[in-house]
Amino acid sequence: MPSTTPPVAIIMGSRSDWPTMKGAADALDNLGVAWEAKVVSAHRTPQRLFDFATGAEKAGYKVIIAGAGGAAHLPGMAASMTNLPVLGVPVQSKALSGLDSLLSIVQMPGGVPVATLAIGEAGAKNAGLLAAQILALSDTALAGRLAAFRAAQTESVAESVED
Amino acid sequence: MPSTTPPVAIIMGSRSDWPTMKGAADALDNLGVAWEAKVVSAHRTPQRLFDFATGAEKAGYKVIIAGAGGAAHLPGMAASMTNLPVLGVPVQSKALSGLDSLLSIVQMPGGVPVATLAIGEAGAKNAGLLAAQILALSDTALAGRLAAFRAAQTESVAESVED
Amino acid sequence: MPSTTPPVAIIMGSRSDWPTMKGAADALDNLGVAWEAKVVSAHRTPQRLFDFATGAEKAGYKVIIAGAGGAAHLPGMAASMTNLPVLGVPVQSKALSGLDSLLSIVQMPGGVPVATLAIGEAGAKNAGLLAAQILALSDTALAGRLAAFRAAQTESVAESVED
Amino acid sequence: MPSTTPPVAIIMGSRSDWPTMKGAADALDNLGVAWEAKVVSAHRTPQRLFDFATGAEKAGYKVIIAGAGGAAHLPGMAASMTNLPVLGVPVQSKALSGLDSLLSIVQMPGGVPVATLAIGEAGAKNAGLLAAQILALSDTALAGRLAAFRAAQTESVAESVED
Amino acid sequence: MPSTTPPVAIIMGSRSDWPTMKGAADALDNLGVAWEAKVVSAHRTPQRLFDFATGAEKAGYKVIIAGAGGAAHLPGMAASMTNLPVLGVPVQSKALSGLDSLLSIVQMPGGVPVATLAIGEAGAKNAGLLAAQILALSDTALAGRLAAFRAAQTESVAESVED
Amino acid sequence: MPSTTPPVAIIMGSRSDWPTMKGAADALDNLGVAWEAKVVSAHRTPQRLFDFATGAEKAGYKVIIAGAGGAAHLPGMAASMTNLPVLGVPVQSKALSGLDSLLSIVQMPGGVPVATLAIGEAGAKNAGLLAAQILALSDTALAGRLAAFRAAQTESVAESVED
Amino acid sequence: MPSTTPPVAIIMGSRSDWPTMKGAADALDNLGVAWEAKVVSAHRTPQRLFDFATGAEKAGYKVIIAGAGGAAHLPGMAASMTNLPVLGVPVQSKALSGLDSLLSIVQMPGGVPVATLAIGEAGAKNAGLLAAQILALSDTALAGRLAAFRAAQTESVAESVED
Amino acid sequence: MPSTTPPVAIIMGSRSDWPTMKGAADALDNLGVAWEAKVVSAHRTPQRLFDFATGAEKAGYKVIIAGAGGAAHLPGMAASMTNLPVLGVPVQSKALSGLDSLLSIVQMPGGVPVATLAIGEAGAKNAGLLAAQILALSDTALAGRLAAFRAAQTESVAESVED
Repeated sequence: MPSTTPPVAIIMGSRSDWPTMKGAADALDNLGVAWEAKVVSAHRTPQRLFDFATGAEKAGYKVIIAGAGGAAHLPGMAASMTNLPVLGVPVQSKALSGLDSLLSIVQMPGGVPVATLAIGEAGAKNAGLLAAQILALSDTALAGRLAAFRAAQTESVAESVED
Repeated sequence: MPSTTPPVAIIMGSRSDWPTMKGAADALDNLGVAWEAKVVSAHRTPQRLFDFATGAEKAGYKVIIAGAGGAAHLPGMAASMTNLPVLGVPVQSKALSGLDSLLSIVQMPGGVPVATLAIGEAGAKNAGLLAAQILALSDTALAGRLAAFRAAQTESVAESVED
Repeated sequence: MPSTTPPVAIIMGSRSDWPTMKGAADALDNLGVAWEAKVVSAHRTPQRLFDFATGAEKAGYKVIIAGAGGAAHLPGMAASMTNLPVLGVPVQSKALSGLDSLLSIVQMPGGVPVATLAIGEAGAKNAGLLAAQILALSDTALAGRLAAFRAAQTESVAESVED
Repeated sequence: MPSTTPPVAIIMGSRSDWPTMKGAADALDNLGVAWEAKVVSAHRTPQRLFDFATGAEKAGYKVIIAGAGGAAHLPGMAASMTNLPVLGVPVQSKALSGLDSLLSIVQMPGGVPVATLAIGEAGAKNAGLLAAQILALSDTALAGRLAAFRAAQTESVAESVED
Repeated sequence: MPSTTPPVAIIMGSRSDWPTMKGAADALDNLGVAWEAKVVSAHRTPQRLFDFATGAEKAGYKVIIAGAGGAAHLPGMAASMTNLPVLGVPVQSKALSGLDSLLSIVQMPGGVPVATLAIGEAGAKNAGLLAAQILALSDTALAGRLAAFRAAQTESVAESVED
Repeated sequence: MPSTTPPVAIIMGSRSDWPTMKGAADALDNLGVAWEAKVVSAHRTPQRLFDFATGAEKAGYKVIIAGAGGAAHLPGMAASMTNLPVLGVPVQSKALSGLDSLLSIVQMPGGVPVATLAIGEAGAKNAGLLAAQILALSDTALAGRLAAFRAAQTESVAESVED
Repeated sequence: MPSTTPPVAIIMGSRSDWPTMKGAADALDNLGVAWEAKVVSAHRTPQRLFDFATGAEKAGYKVIIAGAGGAAHLPGMAASMTNLPVLGVPVQSKALSGLDSLLSIVQMPGGVPVATLAIGEAGAKNAGLLAAQILALSDTALAGRLAAFRAAQTESVAESVED
Repeated sequence: MPSTTPPVAIIMGSRSDWPTMKGAADALDNLGVAWEAKVVSAHRTPQRLFDFATGAEKAGYKVIIAGAGGAAHLPGMAASMTNLPVLGVPVQSKALSGLDSLLSIVQMPGGVPVATLAIGEAGAKNAGLLAAQILALSDTALAGRLAAFRAAQTESVAESVED
């Protein structure tokens, strides 16, 4: 991680969300986009969330990826305190398999958007890719790397159903 | 509403929640418990929420009733910033009938409880009653009024299925 | 457990609910709040439930925590026979993961509230904390311990996503 | 209604359930089976429920039909206090369309059965028919009327899709 | 199994349902009620179902217990061809945990009732008990055994949450 | 309707399903495919269903479209008694909006397929189109009409969002 | 696999769907129907999908079986670009058990049908059988093999619940 | 609408989605962001979708907003053919209230992200705002207007619950 503020902040409600959210970091690494990850719990550390979210734009972040499970308030509350795009990842929960996380993140009221991705690892990976797509709008080199990634992804899908 | 801080604060995410949340106020009125109601939107007025919740205990409130719909973050975020009991009322939402509101409110992580009531009007009324039950633990007169209310409620249930 | 009636009763529909409900007891222990736990099955021991619930207030309890799974009638039926606050914990069920337990507990009709917590262990822990929050309204020492617990909880959330 | 105890008791949680539950009464009327209907609220009149259910067998009832909505505890609690067959009808609820009522009634633990019918009017009608089927096992005349009813029902289904 | 027709037939859609449905047989055994179990698949052996259901009453059965999973048509189709009470047990399915089985069994149209029990083992056990409750209406000895079973069940619920 | 057996039979559980199922007939009319519609209730007229389904192939039908709601057993039971392709249309139900109908129709066990379409009118229309697609495999003229229909459908989608 | 175009194409969104989709291939093998399977990802290889679907009819395929999980767009998009019957198999997904796959496949708008089968292996097997039923309409030999398969399937269902 | 390509394209599956999707256009209008809206049906006009999505980047669009209902494939298929950020809006569907639309849009596989918003009008409005947030990362004037909009939004939330 670089010493200056990276463009992407990855925050999550609990350290136990990291195995899921690491997928976002890996996707960004693959595309050469710097990131910073930290635990910010909406419920257990509301002041930390307040400080982070209200200061994120000034700190130099461009995109915030937020992962949380259950009554997943982190993405929506971060979004309520910044004008940066907030991408929300519903972490799979124990009892309800992430349906609670998904609804808590996606059903935001008009006025405060959260860009919601799929439940779990696919969503985390896609949050990283979406952040890169957003940043690529004003970064031609990144746009090139993204296009190459997508082309390689397409290439990698062999037609054969067996090895 | 009395000029000093009443024991119960009723907050809600939007003025459109008031027709539902008024049920809490009515229940408290019936039991002679003072209350104060205001709109505090977790998503549109996060600073107001921050100020209200962190200051609620010092302000003299005893119980907070919070109603919200959709990605209903208000009860949980209030609970994250106060040690007062927070009672959450899921307001019926347009598309998902309040199932989203319910899950967003009730599925709080260990460490920060929200006492969740039923979706809609029944839940709002019960939030008022629950607040009264809590306050009655140290208010014998209120306990008496509650007991009388419950007895009258039981009396009012006629056996006949028709008028 | 003290010999006099403790302020909190923890009841549950089956001994198999204890591994979940122990979380409530542990939370109370951490805060120095006495409790008593017993199996009271709404369906298999309705007379025991009737005797317990109608006598709970006179026996000296202040708050009742009730956990149950499936057609979880215990919290609501206890609430129907006492004016004490009843906190309901939906125990995770085998087939429907506790969604049945949750709806059976939370969707109480207007007039008889049950303060519902999250499905499973998080909910049990939070029931203990909520009971303490309620009792702390008239117990300054407990209020202090609660505040200390919450502060310690906040402290314990390290920012780092890895060990 | 006859002056002696009829074989079927129809109980419901609220007078507002009667428009639904009347379907059970009508089905019984069509088959010449006597019934008695009353409001017995599990939550608002638990003593009435206790008295009714523990005394139902001695009173001479043979089958109990119980309808309720939301956290529909009436059928299960009646079943917990009698050995008579209890037939449960989930009344359609406002927010969750009776899915909560259905799960609260049907997901009974092993040891205390409730015979659950469909949500709403179809379920109420079928509760009446099921009660008649049960009584017909020891009443040949009723068995004959039932068979005639079923034959007529089959006859009444015209093949034509239009009038 | 006795050589004459036992009062209860237990049918199921597949041999793989037997581990679940055996709970019904065990409950009947405990109460001294004879039964017969066989595989009758609504979808793979419709003629066998037709023959069984249309002939069940004449064969001497009194109650039919039918268990099935997924698009569980067996209980409802049996009910469509007999006037005997049909008790339906939703077997837990692989993908949807028995919610599909439950809705397929319980949501019968007005005119053809199926007495639906809980998903899985609890439901199978309760189907056995419900069959016994129905038969006990005209069998005093069985009624006595049922009452003894219920009393013993109540006795067996120790208050202690730990061994 | 022609006097000889048309290739498509449209059956439905109740005359009240016709307003939905008419969409299948209209789609077939548009493509010049003959059909015949009748009410065949799995639950109220099981013998009629048995006779229809076991005789459908010999009668000359090629495809069966079956619509039903709630515990929608008609498509699956028809499929159990014929080798003709059976297309199932879940009719929107009152309480559960057709989710029960959908699961009852689609979750068939391995060995007896039902080709399931969308809930309600879109599904009925598509059942008609699917039947035509199936018949077109051995009817070049119909294949041509289908291709023309699809081309016209594509043409009809104007880009403008307003009139 | 034969060198000429087989009548059935089995496509799937990912090689990881093959263990499920192999059930379709096995069913076709059992009935002597040739098939070809390949991975065609709607999302990662949209051009391959476009080429496949628009060319499928000319290539000589008669029926397309398409399996996919999650936001399962493959069946519907294939159907949008061909007049051949498309049979969709919802592959069981990790978080939501295939309910997402099912709804994404079945809820097609009027005008573009997808014949949807059950979630998972049963659905895959049934897709193979349904394809055979469709082909059998113009292939008497296959119709005979299908009839024999169905008869054998019925034969294989022993009545005994135990070995 | 300007004559050159506006930064935001709003596409939707049907003209009937426009009353919902207009909310996105209005939000963009309020922030002075140009847009273009057209009907592009994934299922009825796949070639138009193919042409639009593969050409969107070259055409000069920066962000694509896509709304669809039911088996809502439009957002995901657009995302599969462009590297531009695609924002998906689940339009409320008739039978399942948009839960089908939501799952079809949000549950994308890893590799192809769709930024999903809430069901219905709130989601459409938020798609417009999110598009503006994304564009504002490289447009300081727009960032200023966004900040002003958010400040005004916060201001507009009066505390009073009544007029």
